[in-house]
Amino acid sequence: MIDASLPVAMFDSGVGGLTVLHECLVALPQEDYVYLGDTAWFPYGTRDPERLRDRIALITEDLLERGVKLVVIACNTATAIGEDVVREVAAGYGVQVVPVVQPQAEIAAAITENRRIGVLATTNTVESGAYRRALEAQGRALEVIEVAAPRLAPFIQDGSLFDEETMEMARGYCAPLREAGIDTLILGCTHYPLVAPMLQRILGRNVRLVSGGHAVAAAVQRTLTRAGLARTGDEEGAYEFFCTGPIADFREVATRFLQMPLGEVRQIEFADRGRPSVCRADGAV
Amino acid sequence: MIDASLPVAMFDSGVGGLTVLHECLVALPQEDYVYLGDTAWFPYGTRDPERLRDRIALITEDLLERGVKLVVIACNTATAIGEDVVREVAAGYGVQVVPVVQPQAEIAAAITENRRIGVLATTNTVESGAYRRALEAQGRALEVIEVAAPRLAPFIQDGSLFDEETMEMARGYCAPLREAGIDTLILGCTHYPLVAPMLQRILGRNVRLVSGGHAVAAAVQRTLTRAGLARTGDEEGAYEFFCTGPIADFREVATRFLQMPLGEVRQIEFADRGRPSVCRADGAV
Repeated sequence: MIDASLPVAMFDSGVGGLTVLHECLVALPQEDYVYLGDTAWFPYGTRDPERLRDRIALITEDLLERGVKLVVIACNTATAIGEDVVREVAAGYGVQVVPVVQPQAEIAAAITENRRIGVLATTNTVESGAYRRALEAQGRALEVIEVAAPRLAPFIQDGSLFDEETMEMARGYCAPLREAGIDTLILGCTHYPLVAPMLQRILGRNVRLVSGGHAVAAAVQRTLTRAGLARTGDEEGAYEFFCTGPIADFREVATRFLQMPLGEVRQIEFADRGRPSVCRADGAV
Repeated sequence: MIDASLPVAMFDSGVGGLTVLHECLVALPQEDYVYLGDTAWFPYGTRDPERLRDRIALITEDLLERGVKLVVIACNTATAIGEDVVREVAAGYGVQVVPVVQPQAEIAAAITENRRIGVLATTNTVESGAYRRALEAQGRALEVIEVAAPRLAPFIQDGSLFDEETMEMARGYCAPLREAGIDTLILGCTHYPLVAPMLQRILGRNVRLVSGGHAVAAAVQRTLTRAGLARTGDEEGAYEFFCTGPIADFREVATRFLQMPLGEVRQIEFADRGRPSVCRADGAV
């Protein structure tokens, strides 16, 4: 039985999805959240698609077995490769799914005035065509300018957020977007919100940035409200973390992406097609 | 002769004002900026007011002698203690001044719906009554709830941004604001934007936060535009830094507050009533 008191589940290949959770923690503080970072399989972009779809099915099932009221795919690659898998598994539990691409496309299409929309994303995401298809399905004649930024996410992951080299790199990636005169930019990678002010300065404030977190938080609220599953009241909810790789590695970068206290992190392992089990817990708060 | 090509000057007792510069770099990227952090005299809150007014006059004169088109007081204490001094010195050069308190009070009074406005600030700022006076001068019957948060700025300065202790502290300071049912909160210290998402989560999203940076950026734009001194075009401007204490100390925390590359930082010294001179430069970019 799905109940409003259950947590919202969210997963990603690593820590990038924590920028999505961050937005949800700020915009929908009364909800509980469970976040799973599949750090043992990071990065998803280099994985064989069929094996990745199996993995995504396992993760989705694990989250659903914990008792959740919604599944958020806080990962661009997982959305592009396996959104249908997540929806299929979740449907078996009567649970709805919020992916990361579609909500951004809807917002971008709704707010653009000159109908020129930029997409900044990893090479994999650009090549998947996911954002282009989602934008083209919006029913407005839109010009979509996609820029692959292969070096940006690794820099952000390493913590080189605010140095001149990152700024120069960002300027390079933004040049074709400025040239094209976009008025709306989709941040097509969950890492990019950490350099959003930099991108805003380079593009000028007449360009509106649409992050995955912002769009997902709006979609989560809409979906829960329509289903009668939104929590009421103004009590602050709880949130907890699972990762599949070493806890210390997750903890090291996760706080920077979440921008909130991390609390306890537990490591889980997935046996092939078997049930996962918690093997180690880290109780630091 | 004041010219649109000149930079905007900004000063603070340390690095907190860099959150104000951050907002200006994002909102008004085409302008040049000069920032002076008086780190040798940090914190201003414990200084003798008369000596501090002399110091503020010296700093203002130094900035004006460099050739600037506007002076921003990016510091709550300096605004409370010495706004009139800055205005007097700047008037001699025909240059206008944007302080940090007044613009926030104007925005808060304009956007509140239930007319209950919270002010979160250091003990000194609350005791100065500067925000209360500025709000009461807005011509609306406003209920002002002030909370002194003596421990929050030191925690932010030390870098303990996202741990559970900071969150607990923030919850404590926010409790009377929640209790009072405010719909607008003035962040009355330039350090607080770094924990704005945390405060937003605790207060709920129906409370609107008004940071000094946001309000100052709007006031700078308005002032420059009215005076015919705003830069046009979409070229990215430059910015440079001076500090009065050790460069290494400034550099260590400044990037975290600016959230942009810092570039060169120069140290200057003020002889009593004499002209300052650059004594050391740090060319790292």
